[in-house]
Amino acid sequence: MLIAARSKLLFIGDSITDAGRNRPVAEGLFDPLGKGYVTQVSALLGAAYPDRPVRVVNTGCSGNTVRDLKGRWQSDVLDLKPDWLSIMIGTNDVWRQFDSPLFPEAAVQPEEYEATLDALVGTTKPLLKGLVLMTPFYAEPNQGDAMRARMDQYGKIVLSVAKKHGVIGVDTQAAFDRALKHQHSSNLSWDRVHPNLIGHMILARAFLDAVGFVWSPVRREK
Amino acid sequence: MLIAARSKLLFIGDSITDAGRNRPVAEGLFDPLGKGYVTQVSALLGAAYPDRPVRVVNTGCSGNTVRDLKGRWQSDVLDLKPDWLSIMIGTNDVWRQFDSPLFPEAAVQPEEYEATLDALVGTTKPLLKGLVLMTPFYAEPNQGDAMRARMDQYGKIVLSVAKKHGVIGVDTQAAFDRALKHQHSSNLSWDRVHPNLIGHMILARAFLDAVGFVWSPVRREK
Amino acid sequence: MLIAARSKLLFIGDSITDAGRNRPVAEGLFDPLGKGYVTQVSALLGAAYPDRPVRVVNTGCSGNTVRDLKGRWQSDVLDLKPDWLSIMIGTNDVWRQFDSPLFPEAAVQPEEYEATLDALVGTTKPLLKGLVLMTPFYAEPNQGDAMRARMDQYGKIVLSVAKKHGVIGVDTQAAFDRALKHQHSSNLSWDRVHPNLIGHMILARAFLDAVGFVWSPVRREK
Amino acid sequence: MLIAARSKLLFIGDSITDAGRNRPVAEGLFDPLGKGYVTQVSALLGAAYPDRPVRVVNTGCSGNTVRDLKGRWQSDVLDLKPDWLSIMIGTNDVWRQFDSPLFPEAAVQPEEYEATLDALVGTTKPLLKGLVLMTPFYAEPNQGDAMRARMDQYGKIVLSVAKKHGVIGVDTQAAFDRALKHQHSSNLSWDRVHPNLIGHMILARAFLDAVGFVWSPVRREK
Amino acid sequence: MLIAARSKLLFIGDSITDAGRNRPVAEGLFDPLGKGYVTQVSALLGAAYPDRPVRVVNTGCSGNTVRDLKGRWQSDVLDLKPDWLSIMIGTNDVWRQFDSPLFPEAAVQPEEYEATLDALVGTTKPLLKGLVLMTPFYAEPNQGDAMRARMDQYGKIVLSVAKKHGVIGVDTQAAFDRALKHQHSSNLSWDRVHPNLIGHMILARAFLDAVGFVWSPVRREK
Amino acid sequence: MLIAARSKLLFIGDSITDAGRNRPVAEGLFDPLGKGYVTQVSALLGAAYPDRPVRVVNTGCSGNTVRDLKGRWQSDVLDLKPDWLSIMIGTNDVWRQFDSPLFPEAAVQPEEYEATLDALVGTTKPLLKGLVLMTPFYAEPNQGDAMRARMDQYGKIVLSVAKKHGVIGVDTQAAFDRALKHQHSSNLSWDRVHPNLIGHMILARAFLDAVGFVWSPVRREK
Amino acid sequence: MLIAARSKLLFIGDSITDAGRNRPVAEGLFDPLGKGYVTQVSALLGAAYPDRPVRVVNTGCSGNTVRDLKGRWQSDVLDLKPDWLSIMIGTNDVWRQFDSPLFPEAAVQPEEYEATLDALVGTTKPLLKGLVLMTPFYAEPNQGDAMRARMDQYGKIVLSVAKKHGVIGVDTQAAFDRALKHQHSSNLSWDRVHPNLIGHMILARAFLDAVGFVWSPVRREK
Amino acid sequence: MLIAARSKLLFIGDSITDAGRNRPVAEGLFDPLGKGYVTQVSALLGAAYPDRPVRVVNTGCSGNTVRDLKGRWQSDVLDLKPDWLSIMIGTNDVWRQFDSPLFPEAAVQPEEYEATLDALVGTTKPLLKGLVLMTPFYAEPNQGDAMRARMDQYGKIVLSVAKKHGVIGVDTQAAFDRALKHQHSSNLSWDRVHPNLIGHMILARAFLDAVGFVWSPVRREK
Repeated sequence: MLIAARSKLLFIGDSITDAGRNRPVAEGLFDPLGKGYVTQVSALLGAAYPDRPVRVVNTGCSGNTVRDLKGRWQSDVLDLKPDWLSIMIGTNDVWRQFDSPLFPEAAVQPEEYEATLDALVGTTKPLLKGLVLMTPFYAEPNQGDAMRARMDQYGKIVLSVAKKHGVIGVDTQAAFDRALKHQHSSNLSWDRVHPNLIGHMILARAFLDAVGFVWSPVRREK
Repeated sequence: MLIAARSKLLFIGDSITDAGRNRPVAEGLFDPLGKGYVTQVSALLGAAYPDRPVRVVNTGCSGNTVRDLKGRWQSDVLDLKPDWLSIMIGTNDVWRQFDSPLFPEAAVQPEEYEATLDALVGTTKPLLKGLVLMTPFYAEPNQGDAMRARMDQYGKIVLSVAKKHGVIGVDTQAAFDRALKHQHSSNLSWDRVHPNLIGHMILARAFLDAVGFVWSPVRREK
Repeated sequence: MLIAARSKLLFIGDSITDAGRNRPVAEGLFDPLGKGYVTQVSALLGAAYPDRPVRVVNTGCSGNTVRDLKGRWQSDVLDLKPDWLSIMIGTNDVWRQFDSPLFPEAAVQPEEYEATLDALVGTTKPLLKGLVLMTPFYAEPNQGDAMRARMDQYGKIVLSVAKKHGVIGVDTQAAFDRALKHQHSSNLSWDRVHPNLIGHMILARAFLDAVGFVWSPVRREK
Repeated sequence: MLIAARSKLLFIGDSITDAGRNRPVAEGLFDPLGKGYVTQVSALLGAAYPDRPVRVVNTGCSGNTVRDLKGRWQSDVLDLKPDWLSIMIGTNDVWRQFDSPLFPEAAVQPEEYEATLDALVGTTKPLLKGLVLMTPFYAEPNQGDAMRARMDQYGKIVLSVAKKHGVIGVDTQAAFDRALKHQHSSNLSWDRVHPNLIGHMILARAFLDAVGFVWSPVRREK
Repeated sequence: MLIAARSKLLFIGDSITDAGRNRPVAEGLFDPLGKGYVTQVSALLGAAYPDRPVRVVNTGCSGNTVRDLKGRWQSDVLDLKPDWLSIMIGTNDVWRQFDSPLFPEAAVQPEEYEATLDALVGTTKPLLKGLVLMTPFYAEPNQGDAMRARMDQYGKIVLSVAKKHGVIGVDTQAAFDRALKHQHSSNLSWDRVHPNLIGHMILARAFLDAVGFVWSPVRREK
Repeated sequence: MLIAARSKLLFIGDSITDAGRNRPVAEGLFDPLGKGYVTQVSALLGAAYPDRPVRVVNTGCSGNTVRDLKGRWQSDVLDLKPDWLSIMIGTNDVWRQFDSPLFPEAAVQPEEYEATLDALVGTTKPLLKGLVLMTPFYAEPNQGDAMRARMDQYGKIVLSVAKKHGVIGVDTQAAFDRALKHQHSSNLSWDRVHPNLIGHMILARAFLDAVGFVWSPVRREK
Repeated sequence: MLIAARSKLLFIGDSITDAGRNRPVAEGLFDPLGKGYVTQVSALLGAAYPDRPVRVVNTGCSGNTVRDLKGRWQSDVLDLKPDWLSIMIGTNDVWRQFDSPLFPEAAVQPEEYEATLDALVGTTKPLLKGLVLMTPFYAEPNQGDAMRARMDQYGKIVLSVAKKHGVIGVDTQAAFDRALKHQHSSNLSWDRVHPNLIGHMILARAFLDAVGFVWSPVRREK
Repeated sequence: MLIAARSKLLFIGDSITDAGRNRPVAEGLFDPLGKGYVTQVSALLGAAYPDRPVRVVNTGCSGNTVRDLKGRWQSDVLDLKPDWLSIMIGTNDVWRQFDSPLFPEAAVQPEEYEATLDALVGTTKPLLKGLVLMTPFYAEPNQGDAMRARMDQYGKIVLSVAKKHGVIGVDTQAAFDRALKHQHSSNLSWDRVHPNLIGHMILARAFLDAVGFVWSPVRREK
């Protein structure tokens, strides 16, 4: 696995990352990481690699856009001095364009989205041992849906930023699309945005596969 | 308007009708009818026709299918002796087929749906001065979506039952489709099932137009 | 209708406008506008004109007099830059003269009421595309009641200020009086001040009629 | 004073008597009698006559009509074996005719009101040392108001029943009218039905004067 | 009665005065004066003298000693500009000497008690139309009890300060002693300090008699 | 110590024994025995005799008289099959005679008190290895107080019943009197009935001394 | 994987299985399965095998022993007609012997434990497609600890019952021991019984490995 | 006993000392000292020495290490001017090394622990009449357990600091070890850190024996 023992791994993002985590910074005793993919990643890493413990931290905040991340980047990322960082942002940047068309100030357009994400990655990467960019997703299989199309556009931006900076990109939309071949979106998420625990595990698996997680110690030793 | 002064008008249905109404039977003082289209209908009737008051009653129950309606028909419809009855059911009959595919007992298939609705209407109509059948809807404009297609099938059953018995049918899906031409589904309902208050007013308007409601007293007098 | 698509329409007033709205400024997702006429106006506009959405904002505050409005005018009106503004104030200015005769500092006398309202309208109108002044009302049909007589005096002030500035005046007392011909005041409001939802719809209708709202799209096209 | 030392004095009625009393029967330690005239009567008797303590009991129930009293007469009056009984009922019998005109089953018409009250008094009086009938009241000075006129009609029934059976009648409407000469109704009760504590004391004084209460021990000794 | 119509009458003291009143200053609508003698005085004045309304204010605070009164005298007495003032303090000054003998800083010794009270009365009397000093009391009939003896000492200080300044003194201990001849202390107060509502009415009566309250309007007219 | 290892020791009584214990029967994990002397006895036994653990059970109930104990004796004593039993009852039997003089049914007179206690002891003693009767007490040093005198009378009954049946009697009044020589009653109990934790420890010590508890293991071995 | 698509998989056990699940039977929408290994198994199965969904049900109950399972076997296992069943019981059977040595009725001795488990397995296996027996565990690495030794004894019973009936046995103690080589017990569970989420994932992995779960679809296809 | 009458005795420490005490400083009326050994010490001193009362204060804080004590030493020790001081700290300094191995900043290593404790004792002793240092403990009898071994190391530091400064040292580990000879650790503390009330009394006894407490007044007089 790519993440070294005793690394500090920080997740930042919106409500999907937040998932009810403790405030102000979620880490440490009493399972404070929320009810989402961050907790699942932490549990899977801890159980599969007892000899290589990782310190998982969660600073996701419900409702955030990339503009909000920028505003709290110093306190919620840089000051915490992570070794690894995972960013998953963009859902609200897009959603507000569709559920709040009269509130243009609540959404983030592609240009600002890309520029902000690019700047955050560019200035932060030198301080890290590893960085993961997870795309936003929309659990809607119909690519003709206007919001799905818009979300795909933002997902491409994420992957291109990842490529540009040579960091790990995770295509969460592709991961969801594989499940949506077999199940209706309402079986994974009533609003196509907030996943149930199976949907969260789809995200956790996508993240873990990207960082070289191996389930079976037997295979690992080989 | 078709509904005579001092009539008792009963609404029954699922969570969209329920909308947080009071228990056991919602009627009377202190605005007990919930936060949905039933309250809106009541307020519009009361304000536009102060000289022709209507007694509005709500016995909608969250999560109900037509099978549940049948189970409580005696206590929640017949015992209350309404003059007019409005039924809006089918959302959960369909939804469970998609969000709970492993729980077939939770859903209602078309045959049972039609037979049950037909029986309830057939036995109850003779006791009423008026009966309205509102179709279920799915705030998803993509007719290729499997759940939308299924909901359309149930909507057609409702309208055919209405036609067979000579009662009023209200095509709520058509009403939503008109709005969805201009707005994304997430602007009316995050989960495409539970509307916000604008979505509820779409239902209220569809109902009111079907019973001859006229907004302007001036026009009415003509 | 007079209000253009994508306008921002702000309502300010006392508890009748407030109606339990969200703080600090009520607007946006999750139906934050309270349980009164503001919500009803928003729902009716949204449902009847899906192609011409209006952004409705509510900054009503329970207990307010016109003196209170003046005190928060900068933050709760001007800073929000509305296109349209609706003001409905005066109930508490009058009521305190009758329910709290020993607390003269809690009431606002006619001279201060008129001067303050006139100044707010005069300085704000140039910044707006439209302005609506709704009179206060007292759901008491007996014009010999001392408080009703006083409220009528304040209502006349509102309409004269509207006329002076060439803005829309809405006579809510007249709207209630039409209903009180058919119903006892206790059927619309136990305390003759806070309406039930039918009473709120009387207000909503009065407002909507004044801004050219048309219920039926068919009529509209004509 | 008419009430002998160590008597059990029971009050029954509607919300004005109830006033938030403890359940099921309010009496004994920890001031369980509610926040209304019953508590005030109890405190005044206890403080003014420390040598002649009276056991005060409250079984008022919010929303009750005389029909409801009849339904619980056995458990809430007879089983408690009072020495003295005070009945104050009729507010809801009348109010429902005005605030709920579509709910005729919720109101009690004069014939039933009189017959029921007469029967309760007739069968219970022989078991008591004293019986007080307090009229209902409406804190509305305008005798032309339809509900005030109706309440006056019920008040007359109470006084005529008292006269017929030779028990004490208390005209609470007259007591309120004296105060309403000096104050607007909203200063005693926002809804003209539920008094504030000054209004409750008007009731307490009317009761106490009727049973020979004397404030000053000096005068008493004379 | 000594208190003129439309006077502002302020009560200050400890928990017996406080009695759960509203914060920060208790006055006005919704019966905010607490559940003690202040509320009873207000209700009796309002009901017996509807033509001479008095504005009652309560700034009692649980646990206070005279030292605490001094600390908040500006904001809780002077700034409120009362016409009449009633002070009842000393219970905690004494009680802490007995229930907290290890906490000398919590109690107030007689010298400080007298000097502080004297100074507050001396500087405030010129600003008032009337001033009432109520003694503290201990509902313990045994004058040999150490705390009763101490409380008597403080009561004498109160009456001597009243005499010195020519203001009204109210001997609440004497009022309680009259009741304790007929009843055990536990029937008026479990802890001999906090009265039940009968005990509070003993205080209210003592206050009212001292300011010339007359129960019966008939007698008053004479 | 008299109580053998692994004995079941049951305490029954009123609120002083109850002290907020768990329901229905307090014993076992999570310190369920309340905040009073029962918990203190349990902790002292457990800590001083780790090699001789005792199973402590609490079935005290607030407000109980000996008549109440009789009513639940089967379920709350006999069915639990204790080895040792401690009874402390009588406070409410006496208190109601003084704080509720109008409620004679709430108190228990000496004859009934003695007969009931005698019968309970007589029939239960043969089933036990040990039985302790604790007197009620009143934390009032003035023996001339009517309630103290009455409580002393009940205490003598307890000790005479203990003597008659040859079981252990504990004079809790004497234990309190020793402390009251040095402290005012308000330092141990505001209402002279419910002790603070020091007062409870006075009870615990009195009980423990009576059953041969020795604090110091060193002394024990001798 | 051994578990076929659309199977119903039921977990029963004590608090470790319960983990705060919904009542009465946990299954279906809104992630009702608790915060433990059952939820983790469900999420991993759902995410890794979207084409082979499994219906997971949880009827674990905190505090249960095998004797409790027997008492509710009909309603909580048989009536639910599972295809697969997983039993993990024994923690409380052992723990009560150590944390409650005075409460022998709360524990289950080895003979009864084995006989009860054997009977439940024997009668239920014929009705199932698969059955998994998970041993209890104690997160204490010191095999000389009395409770660890006792737990090992019960674990051996579980595995021998599994072997006898030819069903799957899962050695959870061995799984924990592998982690305890690298971490102190307090890092997985403060009380060595209730695991944190990493500890729960150790259980989930042990279960999944036993039923042939494969993390990587790639490997699966081979 | 060593502690003189009317001394102020302050306890500071972590959650074991805190035990749910009141904030900000726990002392005085209403039993504010928490549910642990501090309360037990206070109750035993008060009950056994009514003529020599001691003022007990508790400023323990859950989660604290010696580093935290240092941070609040001025406000929570020095400003309170105790006569006697008892410090019990170290549990969390050690525990975090084992339950949070990835959070080195949360633990305190031996060097810092000793230096900090030594400095606090050295600077504070001159201001006191007496000082007690209680060792931390771990209710784990297996001295081979890594955390037990570490806790023993910290306990030795405490006792050596006590010896160096000539203050009282209390070996709480030895006290627990005596009980653990007879009982499993889970019978005193589920997590081996937070004791039940029997475990707390073990601490209270160890403290009291160290300051010369004598249970029996008889022995004392000798």
